[in-house]
Amino acid sequence: MNYSPLNFREKLTQFSDHWSPKVIAEMNDYQFKLVKVQGDFVWHDHPDTDEVFIVLDGQMTIQFRDGAVELSAGEMYVVPKGVEHKTWAREECHMLLVEPQGVVNTGDVVDPKTAQNDLWV
Amino acid sequence: MNYSPLNFREKLTQFSDHWSPKVIAEMNDYQFKLVKVQGDFVWHDHPDTDEVFIVLDGQMTIQFRDGAVELSAGEMYVVPKGVEHKTWAREECHMLLVEPQGVVNTGDVVDPKTAQNDLWV
Repeated sequence: MNYSPLNFREKLTQFSDHWSPKVIAEMNDYQFKLVKVQGDFVWHDHPDTDEVFIVLDGQMTIQFRDGAVELSAGEMYVVPKGVEHKTWAREECHMLLVEPQGVVNTGDVVDPKTAQNDLWV
Repeated sequence: MNYSPLNFREKLTQFSDHWSPKVIAEMNDYQFKLVKVQGDFVWHDHPDTDEVFIVLDGQMTIQFRDGAVELSAGEMYVVPKGVEHKTWAREECHMLLVEPQGVVNTGDVVDPKTAQNDLWV
């Protein structure tokens, strides 16, 4: 029997909206989510978990209250739990996020960019 | 303050041995590990955890007792806990693994390819 891999590019063709992470896989109680972003997000934190950002295409910046990290394709960063951050991308950027099930993209902040959870592609 | 991203290509220049995963980041109690593989691994499973394989460069096959999945760069696969598997790559292949801290690469099997844990680059 041939099993099928998850192909990031193929999955990325299945949606075009920004700031709305799409689950592609689960490992134990963690989720792998693809997201397309452009422009400015909202300040928030995740008090109970670290959060992993892996850039697949493009460039983006994670701003912190005391600085920033710039990420390009082939780079990742772990935002520690409880650390306020805000993502920003001049051009459309595609990312893979890794975080526990149930994490809301804007943390405890309610915002027009707060996305529905558990949307799969 | 400028924080530094983790760059997969830069990290991959820091080692050349095969079948010896190198930790590059931790998220909660999970680890992200780079590994270079070529040739045949050993049959094993991880009874307590799923395991994620993301191919960064090259191609590899994960063999199961009832089939296989072929992975190329830009593809991932989640091997469910308890499922016996064996990885194989004709040419050198570079992967990112995601799994809990403490997972041994050969599971409960002791083999010359059993690697030391918690080696960081």
